[in-house]
Amino acid sequence: MAGIVVQNIERPALSVIDGLAACGVATVHEAQGRTGLLAPHMRPIYAGARIAGSAVTISAPPGDNWMIHVAIEQLKEGDVMVLAPTSPCSDGYFGDLLATSAQARKCRGLIIDAGVRDVRDLTRMNFPIWSRAVHAQGTIKATLGSVNVPIVCAGAVVNPGDVVVADDDGVCVVPRAEAADVLQKAQAREALEESKRTRLAAGELGLDLYDMRGKLEQMGLKYV
Amino acid sequence: MAGIVVQNIERPALSVIDGLAACGVATVHEAQGRTGLLAPHMRPIYAGARIAGSAVTISAPPGDNWMIHVAIEQLKEGDVMVLAPTSPCSDGYFGDLLATSAQARKCRGLIIDAGVRDVRDLTRMNFPIWSRAVHAQGTIKATLGSVNVPIVCAGAVVNPGDVVVADDDGVCVVPRAEAADVLQKAQAREALEESKRTRLAAGELGLDLYDMRGKLEQMGLKYV
Amino acid sequence: MAGIVVQNIERPALSVIDGLAACGVATVHEAQGRTGLLAPHMRPIYAGARIAGSAVTISAPPGDNWMIHVAIEQLKEGDVMVLAPTSPCSDGYFGDLLATSAQARKCRGLIIDAGVRDVRDLTRMNFPIWSRAVHAQGTIKATLGSVNVPIVCAGAVVNPGDVVVADDDGVCVVPRAEAADVLQKAQAREALEESKRTRLAAGELGLDLYDMRGKLEQMGLKYV
Amino acid sequence: MAGIVVQNIERPALSVIDGLAACGVATVHEAQGRTGLLAPHMRPIYAGARIAGSAVTISAPPGDNWMIHVAIEQLKEGDVMVLAPTSPCSDGYFGDLLATSAQARKCRGLIIDAGVRDVRDLTRMNFPIWSRAVHAQGTIKATLGSVNVPIVCAGAVVNPGDVVVADDDGVCVVPRAEAADVLQKAQAREALEESKRTRLAAGELGLDLYDMRGKLEQMGLKYV
Amino acid sequence: MAGIVVQNIERPALSVIDGLAACGVATVHEAQGRTGLLAPHMRPIYAGARIAGSAVTISAPPGDNWMIHVAIEQLKEGDVMVLAPTSPCSDGYFGDLLATSAQARKCRGLIIDAGVRDVRDLTRMNFPIWSRAVHAQGTIKATLGSVNVPIVCAGAVVNPGDVVVADDDGVCVVPRAEAADVLQKAQAREALEESKRTRLAAGELGLDLYDMRGKLEQMGLKYV
Amino acid sequence: MAGIVVQNIERPALSVIDGLAACGVATVHEAQGRTGLLAPHMRPIYAGARIAGSAVTISAPPGDNWMIHVAIEQLKEGDVMVLAPTSPCSDGYFGDLLATSAQARKCRGLIIDAGVRDVRDLTRMNFPIWSRAVHAQGTIKATLGSVNVPIVCAGAVVNPGDVVVADDDGVCVVPRAEAADVLQKAQAREALEESKRTRLAAGELGLDLYDMRGKLEQMGLKYV
Repeated sequence: MAGIVVQNIERPALSVIDGLAACGVATVHEAQGRTGLLAPHMRPIYAGARIAGSAVTISAPPGDNWMIHVAIEQLKEGDVMVLAPTSPCSDGYFGDLLATSAQARKCRGLIIDAGVRDVRDLTRMNFPIWSRAVHAQGTIKATLGSVNVPIVCAGAVVNPGDVVVADDDGVCVVPRAEAADVLQKAQAREALEESKRTRLAAGELGLDLYDMRGKLEQMGLKYV
Repeated sequence: MAGIVVQNIERPALSVIDGLAACGVATVHEAQGRTGLLAPHMRPIYAGARIAGSAVTISAPPGDNWMIHVAIEQLKEGDVMVLAPTSPCSDGYFGDLLATSAQARKCRGLIIDAGVRDVRDLTRMNFPIWSRAVHAQGTIKATLGSVNVPIVCAGAVVNPGDVVVADDDGVCVVPRAEAADVLQKAQAREALEESKRTRLAAGELGLDLYDMRGKLEQMGLKYV
Repeated sequence: MAGIVVQNIERPALSVIDGLAACGVATVHEAQGRTGLLAPHMRPIYAGARIAGSAVTISAPPGDNWMIHVAIEQLKEGDVMVLAPTSPCSDGYFGDLLATSAQARKCRGLIIDAGVRDVRDLTRMNFPIWSRAVHAQGTIKATLGSVNVPIVCAGAVVNPGDVVVADDDGVCVVPRAEAADVLQKAQAREALEESKRTRLAAGELGLDLYDMRGKLEQMGLKYV
Repeated sequence: MAGIVVQNIERPALSVIDGLAACGVATVHEAQGRTGLLAPHMRPIYAGARIAGSAVTISAPPGDNWMIHVAIEQLKEGDVMVLAPTSPCSDGYFGDLLATSAQARKCRGLIIDAGVRDVRDLTRMNFPIWSRAVHAQGTIKATLGSVNVPIVCAGAVVNPGDVVVADDDGVCVVPRAEAADVLQKAQAREALEESKRTRLAAGELGLDLYDMRGKLEQMGLKYV
Repeated sequence: MAGIVVQNIERPALSVIDGLAACGVATVHEAQGRTGLLAPHMRPIYAGARIAGSAVTISAPPGDNWMIHVAIEQLKEGDVMVLAPTSPCSDGYFGDLLATSAQARKCRGLIIDAGVRDVRDLTRMNFPIWSRAVHAQGTIKATLGSVNVPIVCAGAVVNPGDVVVADDDGVCVVPRAEAADVLQKAQAREALEESKRTRLAAGELGLDLYDMRGKLEQMGLKYV
Repeated sequence: MAGIVVQNIERPALSVIDGLAACGVATVHEAQGRTGLLAPHMRPIYAGARIAGSAVTISAPPGDNWMIHVAIEQLKEGDVMVLAPTSPCSDGYFGDLLATSAQARKCRGLIIDAGVRDVRDLTRMNFPIWSRAVHAQGTIKATLGSVNVPIVCAGAVVNPGDVVVADDDGVCVVPRAEAADVLQKAQAREALEESKRTRLAAGELGLDLYDMRGKLEQMGLKYV
């Protein structure tokens, strides 16, 4: 099944992508019904980045980063590369040279369920990555994988063109067809949270704000 | 056994708590006979925080953060919440809204053997957390737990009103009844360390400062 | 076999060590044929450090840091201590007092397949450490180990006097006898990468720069 | 998205399922192009079982096994239940009572990326399970999940009606539409392996059997 | 705090201990309100053992098994040793000689959150152990610990004289004072389960047996 | 450095190898001064095997088992293959066909810090393996490694011709030059243990047998 590059994928509007980035992972995850999270072992190489992008997916053999070169040609502005190895691997598939190339193609970042290296340079370049590991181990270019096919990355299905949102909380995938709808819900949720935040900051308790006391008593909570 | 909220717990004096915070985790751990450490998987969500607080304990079901709302009502100035799930869980029990509420009650931080989310906002709010994981996964409010009962958090027994000290080295618990005594010992240790630090900085060797050469020779250490 | 301190070890020239530090872990690893990396669980206690040093090796029992005092006497300018416990251990073998002593001996850092503590102070002191864990757990001084004997640290053989390079990507060991040669290769590699970086930054694709299209087609890559 | 039970799913022919069971995980994985494996943390609760079945999929909240009762009603002869929790969980979702019920419905086993209990009874009952953990921790029945929707279990996509093959090597999923074809290829592979096995057992080397010497020499392998 | 041996501990009646053994871990855990489980990394060294015993607790330094010799003198018929290291350790604290000695004192087994060795001999001797690891690594006899003090073992508080139940599902602790009561509840639960088992085996569904259909419908479960 | 096959390695006498096998891992580890153990993640694929052999070492790329075919040609009676991947990998490098070939060459088993498959067949064939993982994931034959060069396998240095001892406790390496001496010490240790075993079985305490009471009292052990 390997050895395929899908060239013409559909992408969501940049405005939708950027809107989801502004909402962040936790809010987007809630807005789409608590689905789409990648596993918590996916951590940012540096703190503070918050991005969203249209997924260019990569299925790659363990220890072989050849397909990243192939994927870079497929990148358009607003894209994020998402790589899943075909078996568990922590090798350093990606470093500063590939980041330079990806950035030249206006790629916004990389999500990779494997390792990366040149973290110092990547940080300076402001090229954000969420990965399973940081490992300098070199990779080879010997075996085909595929680009822009459906993959499972860190436990989540990612289809090419899906929106990937990533920040200090991790990574969340939004199916392309639902992206605009999820954005609306996420923004509505944010608006709602703002008023709650104000009331909680003023000292109001969640017990009262969410009207929980009755239900807790009914379930038998005892104050002693 | 779940479903209990203990309201009137005894707390150590704030001066004792603050004194222990100033000493830090490693010194306090040594001062109380090398006990009280939580497991090393408990890591701060951002570097540089050093706090101590009186423990408000929370026993919560996996994936259910209802009891945090109940606990927040019990908070007093100088408190830290300490949450142990009843079975292993990495879900994101706590985020910026709960932190806003806790901060409004003068809570100093959270120790949680599970996951948290909204790390970016929590960092900006300067609300320190030591957790097992960062995960955006949402939780529900369906099942009772307990507040201010004895718990085991990351391998350490924590009773309500115990002092919890936390910094970049991890987390250490000091039983309430021993807190004043441990503080004295910790401060004495710090004073002692200061003179050692000066001598070591001047180039004196630990082998001489601690008079180890004789014992090492007697045990058979060979220089070749 | 424990209980030996080898005093007169050969060290590479400081200029070679410093040259390797400037190249960094990923480049040095590549330059010596993709060998010498320590396992990826070895992480820096703070971001941004990049060092190299001549290894003073330490084999120590679990939970016993006595041999570090012995090792510090053996340190010369440009050295890095490398410690492997004789069985898996995450205790805090090393803290700010030992770092003060090591720094007074012009030691550049510590590589330890176990735990460290006083991370806050170590960061302020600018004493870089790569470790398996951060844990405040105290250690004892009861059993002999050895200094400057061959060890296996995090999966890599380290001989005394080998060059250890460490940065945000992890840790790489270069055998002493090969250090000068590896430095040459690493610098040559860097020079080569610079021109590639310029071309990639200008938008040239790796597919073209590395002339990969023919081989990919021959292996059967299909564009659809 | 939770709260759905799909009742009429298509299943492969029992003969195809049984054929795949006879081939086993490794052969089936190879026959379908090295795809479909679940992660290696999925281990059998006892050695020696080899099964295949049509998947009845379950998406369940952490620590909540309510949906297993719902799924059991959907079981037909030759089915295997496949459960993925919506967030990481090791609680004991399944024990001997549920196994009794499932066995009464002619269910062949369970694949669960969480915990199970009553292992002693399950072993006696000859009800095979592949799980992430064995843990006696009880679960609740409070929140809806779904039955017979697509899930990701231990890193692999499983659709209802897919064939799940499991033995001491782990678990492999075969898409329903490809099952008959994969069976043919697996059986062909087995036939081929039989002749190889005979020749290898007679002392012929793989180097000769697979004609590797030339390629190894050409790639530069040196015998010294 | 180390260096204490408590000699006269109270133990539950042997009949209670034996009764709890017969019920097994999962049932006892349920009977006492889903508390008392040790973490799931505690696994038996061989399958099929089911024991209960009165706990003789051991707090031991990492890599030091001296206190096991001290504990063996405290053993009475029906006891089980429970050992927690003072920091994480996988060394082999216990082997066939210690088991010979413990068996001579009518000890029923060992629960240890560390490593053991001589598994082959231990299996032949029918001396059951639940441990974190199997590792041949030798330990020393250099530092004091304590016997029959409260410990936290694999996340659970164990007091001397508590009942420890262990089988293929793991390990569960029952506080001594509650042991007789928990036994009653466990036996009642078993009786209840027997009738359920019969009905489920006959093909009745849990949905009907537990009368779940109404609640599921009310919560919105949709059959499609 | 890859791409080398060393053909004429020295091996210890079969009588020494067989003697070490009879002593087992724990005894051999003790006899050579508590060195040589592989990490505890190396587990047997089935219980009860106890072997020793002369090491034929294999350094292999991740996910590439080509060098095993090369190594099999180098096997002599009494050999055991020891494979370390050049970066962390759990793929299934080895299955029943390779085992058939190895067994035809009188190979006694495999030690592999990676994955294996066909466990059911390997068990039936009585071909023992100690591995990091069981995983059916297929590997390729594309890149050179080396045979009979020094490797680090699961944290231990293994040179070709070293004796590898393996049983239910794990794996221990004995340098070839020391094998005869270690065997003598191991057998002496066994003789000594036999008399201890008899005395302990008769009820004598280790406290008395090893004369520990005085030292414990002197160190301050308190009986209360």
